[in-house]
Amino acid sequence: MPRSTERGAAPSLAWETLLDLGDGPAPLRDRLERSIRDAVHRGLVPPGSALPPSRVLAETLGVSRWVVTEAYGQLVAEGFLEAVVGSGTRVPLHPVRVPDATTAGRAPTALRGEYRRPRFDLGPGIPDLRHVPRTRWADAVRRALDTLADGELMVVDPLGHPLARTAVADSLARSRRAVVAPDDVVITHGATDGMTAVVAGLRDAGHRSLLVEDPSWGRLREVAASAGLTPVPVPVDGDGVDVALLEQAWARTGARAALITPAHQFPLGAALSPARREAIVRWARSVDGVLIEDDYDAEFRYDRRPVAALQGLAPEHVVLVGSLSKSMAQAFGLGWAVMPAELRRRIRLAERPRPSVLDQVALAGFITSGDLERHLRAARGRFRRRRAALLEAFGRELPDLAVTGIAAGMHAMLELPPGVAARDVRHAASALEVAVSDLARYRATAVTEPGARDALVVGYGNLSDVLVDEAVARLAAAIRSIEPVPSEPDGIGGPPDSRSTAPPEGRRHPVA
Amino acid sequence: MPRSTERGAAPSLAWETLLDLGDGPAPLRDRLERSIRDAVHRGLVPPGSALPPSRVLAETLGVSRWVVTEAYGQLVAEGFLEAVVGSGTRVPLHPVRVPDATTAGRAPTALRGEYRRPRFDLGPGIPDLRHVPRTRWADAVRRALDTLADGELMVVDPLGHPLARTAVADSLARSRRAVVAPDDVVITHGATDGMTAVVAGLRDAGHRSLLVEDPSWGRLREVAASAGLTPVPVPVDGDGVDVALLEQAWARTGARAALITPAHQFPLGAALSPARREAIVRWARSVDGVLIEDDYDAEFRYDRRPVAALQGLAPEHVVLVGSLSKSMAQAFGLGWAVMPAELRRRIRLAERPRPSVLDQVALAGFITSGDLERHLRAARGRFRRRRAALLEAFGRELPDLAVTGIAAGMHAMLELPPGVAARDVRHAASALEVAVSDLARYRATAVTEPGARDALVVGYGNLSDVLVDEAVARLAAAIRSIEPVPSEPDGIGGPPDSRSTAPPEGRRHPVA
Repeated sequence: MPRSTERGAAPSLAWETLLDLGDGPAPLRDRLERSIRDAVHRGLVPPGSALPPSRVLAETLGVSRWVVTEAYGQLVAEGFLEAVVGSGTRVPLHPVRVPDATTAGRAPTALRGEYRRPRFDLGPGIPDLRHVPRTRWADAVRRALDTLADGELMVVDPLGHPLARTAVADSLARSRRAVVAPDDVVITHGATDGMTAVVAGLRDAGHRSLLVEDPSWGRLREVAASAGLTPVPVPVDGDGVDVALLEQAWARTGARAALITPAHQFPLGAALSPARREAIVRWARSVDGVLIEDDYDAEFRYDRRPVAALQGLAPEHVVLVGSLSKSMAQAFGLGWAVMPAELRRRIRLAERPRPSVLDQVALAGFITSGDLERHLRAARGRFRRRRAALLEAFGRELPDLAVTGIAAGMHAMLELPPGVAARDVRHAASALEVAVSDLARYRATAVTEPGARDALVVGYGNLSDVLVDEAVARLAAAIRSIEPVPSEPDGIGGPPDSRSTAPPEGRRHPVA
Repeated sequence: MPRSTERGAAPSLAWETLLDLGDGPAPLRDRLERSIRDAVHRGLVPPGSALPPSRVLAETLGVSRWVVTEAYGQLVAEGFLEAVVGSGTRVPLHPVRVPDATTAGRAPTALRGEYRRPRFDLGPGIPDLRHVPRTRWADAVRRALDTLADGELMVVDPLGHPLARTAVADSLARSRRAVVAPDDVVITHGATDGMTAVVAGLRDAGHRSLLVEDPSWGRLREVAASAGLTPVPVPVDGDGVDVALLEQAWARTGARAALITPAHQFPLGAALSPARREAIVRWARSVDGVLIEDDYDAEFRYDRRPVAALQGLAPEHVVLVGSLSKSMAQAFGLGWAVMPAELRRRIRLAERPRPSVLDQVALAGFITSGDLERHLRAARGRFRRRRAALLEAFGRELPDLAVTGIAAGMHAMLELPPGVAARDVRHAASALEVAVSDLARYRATAVTEPGARDALVVGYGNLSDVLVDEAVARLAAAIRSIEPVPSEPDGIGGPPDSRSTAPPEGRRHPVA
């Protein structure tokens, strides 16, 4: 089955055992991708190991070959796997060292938990890793250690340290116009952690399903599904989630909770229109519903002040979820969730670990000293300039393709020419060291409209400023290298959900 | 129902709503205690509020009055509540500020998450908060921030950062003679977090019950019960857990997993004898069982080198759980679990948040720089001297009472005179600003032998060295103040489980 390279020496990996696809609600492609990541993380597939040819793995696992090529393609695009001309796909040699069988039981294995980012990183959802405020954070930790009383060193409040909850509440009240007291705040490890707690609370309160934007960030849909809430997709357009269709979905399914991104829809890049903001709040009130507001990159708006959090309009019906993961990095493991008292009381917070008291108090100091706001202001300037440079380069290199999304956040959408499949572009880009994602990845349901055009989701969070022009030039070359094909799906076994409509109301090169 | 003080202003607290006792397996007394803590933590019961008289609360909640007085007594002993002469029990005014109803929605609530420690702190399980290596840890965090590669800032390995896993593996191999590769290590938030993951894995593997030492630390029994594993108590004596009785319990219930403290049994203070070490490993092998080795204070042995971890004898059958919580403080939120590959693969680690990458890499540096070992060496010296001073004071003040437990860790057991109830001593001690715990608190099953003597569990982890003599003098005064009563339980509704046998093989004033 698998081929081994001269160095990989993984001659008899039992792929059907190593790769447990599980049976969750996520698409097979995503489950395979995750299981490969998992197997590599755990050292089960050593660096240098060749993965089986897609046809062989597809047969072994009993899935379509397309599922395998999609998963490989994504992982190659991310640099997690590498495609070697003439010898297939393999785990890169350098990121992880593995146990040597001859010294098993003692050898250091993975010395650094670092996975190579591609040279031209257009992946969405990746923060600006070059500009993490390391020194200021180290100072915040030192100050926290200097000021923590002895008695604070052994008390772990299940809601979070009061200093952190107070600082976050004040900050959200100021910057997001949230209506929030410290007691409403729970300190989390990040958005996924907060979401996990919230959906468990909703399930315990009797919810059985969750309205989700389609397309949207898949991980949070999965968290809901894992907790037993069936995701109910609701279409999104250039004004954000379609509230009329959301109400229909509620009427059809009874789902009274919705996960939404009003400040900056992911991935379409829309802001929820004022009329829809009012409508969705009215709906939540009328059905005694819960809106989970994923405020993932609301700090970054470049053309105006950010729209206030929806939470401020209806604090008793909105859970506001945020974190440092996009504005700083996941490595800090810090986030927050603001929630109505009734829901907070229902959540069994003590069952999940909180971030360390030390980190929480460092966060409090980082906020109250103004360091966070200083960092956000600088980042806003960087992203604004980077976005402008990116759009300019797109206009130059790909003048016929629409770039959509408001001037915000760290990503934009690029519509592809008719008949050009996003997966082909991604693979071609990957060979040019460009990682990019596509709209179809974030869809909860397949889009099969004839004539629908694929689109890329282009992130610029972690794109080095000096590489913007080169990255776009390479991406443009990748797009031009693909021969357009008729837009009908290519028969049985073809990729039903890689087709997608570009968002309605696409605006060409919005003013940044 | 509740009385309000002139300042507390909590005139209409609905105690039956505020205090949710749940229906877990923990004794009612513990559930009430936790629910009071919880209500105070959440700001539902403002500082200064009076708690209802025990008789009233007992009626309101439908529990025996004894349950309420026990819970109040423990919380008073910890300084979490205060007993005010003539006006009952209340929440102290100073630790937490609360929302002012007139500015609700904005007022900062609990400004510091600190709960007052009693002046003479003889509570067990509390680390030496005065000697936390704050500066060295701040340096470790700064070094971690200096050295983390950009790519490491966004990857969260579900098993933990490789640097941390490698450092912990090396350290455990060296100091605990564990047989462990980095891949066997999972970085956790602490022992409870590790235990939570492990028992979930055991349940998924088909386990339905867990053998637990009796007495033992109740929190970990509760974690097992919450995960659906029924705790099966096994008696402990001066040689540690009774392996013959453990085998009988296995034969009776089929339980093939056991939670044990071989290095230093909590709370009896025994080390598992060599014969029993062999026997329990033999048993685990023969039934394909799992031993969860809670290595909670194994770093601290004062009369000899610590006994090696049991894990080294049977790495394929032992999960080794440890943390920084006892050797440093809970505020760091860091621990580890070493487990056999089969179990590790079964555990859905991705569902629980890991400590932040930053903290994990700081831990790695703190270990590899030698700072942890330096800290442990200094702490060992401090605890050895403090223990000796404590035993000397006991010998002087209470020459007739046996102090038991090996020269290790941060606690000892003190047998009480016949007919003197531990709860009475605790309450009397509390009035003298001395917090102490008692054996009955840690029992999974009631002990009803006639003539059994109560015992205190005396911790010295957080006892200031200069207060040792005074603390013991006050405790002795508290003991002498109690009139011995006949040892039969005092009728229906009396405290069935506050009676306990002192451990067999009690040794008077062991040489420290």
